[in-house]
Amino acid sequence: MAKTTLEKWFTPARILTGGFATLILIGGVLLSLPFASNSGEGLNFLDALFTATSATCVTGLVVVDTLTQFNLFGQLVILSLIQIGGLGFMTVTTFIIIFTGRRIGLRERLVIQEALNVNSLEGVIRLARNIVLITVAIELFFAAILAFRFSMDMPVDRAIYYGIFHAISSFCNAGFDLFGNFRSLTGYVTDPTVNIVVMILIILGGLGFTVMVDVWKAPRPEKLSLHTKLVLTMTATLLIAGAIGYYLLEMNNPKTLGPLAWNEKLLAAMFASTTARTAGYATIDYGSLTDASLLWTILLMFIGASPGSTGGGIKTVTTIVILLYVISILTGKESTVAFRKRLDPRTVHKSFAVAVISAILLVTVTFALTLTEDKEFIRLLFEATSAFGTVGLSTNLTPELTPFGRIIVMLMMFAGRVGPVTLALALTLRAQQKAMIKYPEEKLFVG
Amino acid sequence: MAKTTLEKWFTPARILTGGFATLILIGGVLLSLPFASNSGEGLNFLDALFTATSATCVTGLVVVDTLTQFNLFGQLVILSLIQIGGLGFMTVTTFIIIFTGRRIGLRERLVIQEALNVNSLEGVIRLARNIVLITVAIELFFAAILAFRFSMDMPVDRAIYYGIFHAISSFCNAGFDLFGNFRSLTGYVTDPTVNIVVMILIILGGLGFTVMVDVWKAPRPEKLSLHTKLVLTMTATLLIAGAIGYYLLEMNNPKTLGPLAWNEKLLAAMFASTTARTAGYATIDYGSLTDASLLWTILLMFIGASPGSTGGGIKTVTTIVILLYVISILTGKESTVAFRKRLDPRTVHKSFAVAVISAILLVTVTFALTLTEDKEFIRLLFEATSAFGTVGLSTNLTPELTPFGRIIVMLMMFAGRVGPVTLALALTLRAQQKAMIKYPEEKLFVG
Ligand SMILES: [K+]
Ligand SMILES: [K+]
Repeated sequence: MAKTTLEKWFTPARILTGGFATLILIGGVLLSLPFASNSGEGLNFLDALFTATSATCVTGLVVVDTLTQFNLFGQLVILSLIQIGGLGFMTVTTFIIIFTGRRIGLRERLVIQEALNVNSLEGVIRLARNIVLITVAIELFFAAILAFRFSMDMPVDRAIYYGIFHAISSFCNAGFDLFGNFRSLTGYVTDPTVNIVVMILIILGGLGFTVMVDVWKAPRPEKLSLHTKLVLTMTATLLIAGAIGYYLLEMNNPKTLGPLAWNEKLLAAMFASTTARTAGYATIDYGSLTDASLLWTILLMFIGASPGSTGGGIKTVTTIVILLYVISILTGKESTVAFRKRLDPRTVHKSFAVAVISAILLVTVTFALTLTEDKEFIRLLFEATSAFGTVGLSTNLTPELTPFGRIIVMLMMFAGRVGPVTLALALTLRAQQKAMIKYPEEKLFVG
Repeated sequence: MAKTTLEKWFTPARILTGGFATLILIGGVLLSLPFASNSGEGLNFLDALFTATSATCVTGLVVVDTLTQFNLFGQLVILSLIQIGGLGFMTVTTFIIIFTGRRIGLRERLVIQEALNVNSLEGVIRLARNIVLITVAIELFFAAILAFRFSMDMPVDRAIYYGIFHAISSFCNAGFDLFGNFRSLTGYVTDPTVNIVVMILIILGGLGFTVMVDVWKAPRPEKLSLHTKLVLTMTATLLIAGAIGYYLLEMNNPKTLGPLAWNEKLLAAMFASTTARTAGYATIDYGSLTDASLLWTILLMFIGASPGSTGGGIKTVTTIVILLYVISILTGKESTVAFRKRLDPRTVHKSFAVAVISAILLVTVTFALTLTEDKEFIRLLFEATSAFGTVGLSTNLTPELTPFGRIIVMLMMFAGRVGPVTLALALTLRAQQKAMIKYPEEKLFVG
């Protein structure tokens, strides 16, 4: 069957990119309305667009304080953008289509496949339904616990709202908060309930739905897919190593962990390790970290969450594939092996490509920021990496960015959420169909 | 034939690494002698070892000022280390072996092959002899011009010595100077003769001997090898783009290019572009560059010179192979093509591995420096990259490094000169023979 020019132009990568862009634009318009602001005066469009991008791309970098700037309507717009962006708007579209009874064609399935990073066309619809059900169940359960905890600090109706808002924002790894004054969760640095609930939500959201479903269904640990094994191993390793790093690097810093007791230090270090790889909630002041800790955070942010999750970064699987390949070269092995399985050379290739394209993007954006922002280099690198990994941590410089800086960071959040490879494919004019056909054959999802 | 355990242990990678280490140790002992210092008091061993490492690895980072600290004997020790390190001590060994009439066995040839990055075993001996002849001819010719120029500023005997010293140091991309007070070539920022001669020497030295021989012998440009074409294209592109970058980024900086006339700005920008990719001579104060220019320099230093040259970095060919692969992915092409030739997938693989291992090394070293050195992050990253690329540029912090920092930078210069992959192979305990056998089959030299 011959395709029309229009059909050829609408590649999965382009539909995905275009969908995100449309959502952001609608959000930006809504958030700039006087009707969305506490002050009754409309927010300037650039800042409204920045906020919409940050919410849709589940980043959490903010140029205005969410609580002070936006009224309930504005906050609900942000929450909706987070939920749609976090689930992937394609999942939502699929869901609507299923319930309105429309048949799903091959084209739609390809788009969903791209969005969810699922290799086989089969079961995509079932997966989409499962995703929404799992999400709602997890969010409601933990929202209840958070609401209970918050009810000790505020009226019950507000506690329920805060429970729901922060549970969604945590599970989607969005990092938006309603505690005012850009404070994030610093007020709860030593609170076990809030820390543990938020950490569980962040970790679950960062695993990716395929992993959650796989763990749920596998009869024995050995039956888990290679992908799941790699994701679980890397996630555990990064969480523990990250926490040890923060503990050692910040234990004597009077502005961060210094004043805390050893067990509070441990909690804060664990939270910092958990939040860095994509969530973006902060219980300590990142503007006061040592340079070593900033670099530590930059590395964790660059690695990011797992493929198909709500998080960003080059992804855990990409990282472990690269490390395994490097180890195989240095030990003179013929092939790259993980859990007694040989990795497809194309998986290795794609992993390297994702890492290198991401690094080039990160360096370019940081370079652009050094041209207009008169700030310390490491803070600009931190901000750029935070945007790329859709993390949302900041050394408090986001509100101080110049208009040019805001636009650059905004574009970076978008690239980070859509994925640099998908974005590049969307922008490239020719032959992207071929690449699309080539990659789905691969055995692992790497970025 | 069964190999003895000893023969198995002495892999080419280990012989190369061990040879460099021995040379450095001898140099360090000589430079710490009271007999080598102007003051008549011996330099402390750490600083002497640092200087010997910097000279042998043709880096040029200095913790003591070469002119003030060392007398003629000390300076000649440094010059010898530069010349031996620059040519690759293996070439010198080969040369000695040829002239003392000893037969060269397969093992020696493998070592030389590793050192010179030559793929075929044939012609290695001829190449080694050619290298020495080309080197001496080029160095003497340009030393004469430099001596003539310097004779206008100093007595003739000193001008001749300075001509020879700086011609060798330029061609070997070593970056050591005898102008005192860590000034490097800042006194000659607007001098066309010194700038142009030094630039020619740096560029020739950075091309690699195989390229020079290929250009010399090829009847027509089309007959050049793919390697030569890539090296020449990348070198020209990087030189021009680098210069444009410095011009635009520094033209209004009152501490660097600002006070110069437009043509002097151009000369200084061209020199900065030339020196950054591995030479390390400075005509402007790198401590006064803008952050954008520092990052620009870091990128050029990371890329470095061409394979088999006197320079460091991940190398020009590695960089272009990675970029071509990325472009081929983004345009959906099946294979990576350069000058109408398809690149061997293993070449692409190795390029990625070199770049990623180098990046990991760079981040690790920079991280280590942030732990002990209380300096701005970008200056530490700059210093680490300068050591890795055996460049020798510094934002003037080398003499201020703590002992730990000196040791770290010293190790980095060593890793940068030997090559991270070779070093890792030398340190790895098993199966490196296999890897050795695997890689020489490749069509391109990537790092
Ligand atoms: K986030
Ligand atoms: K150098």
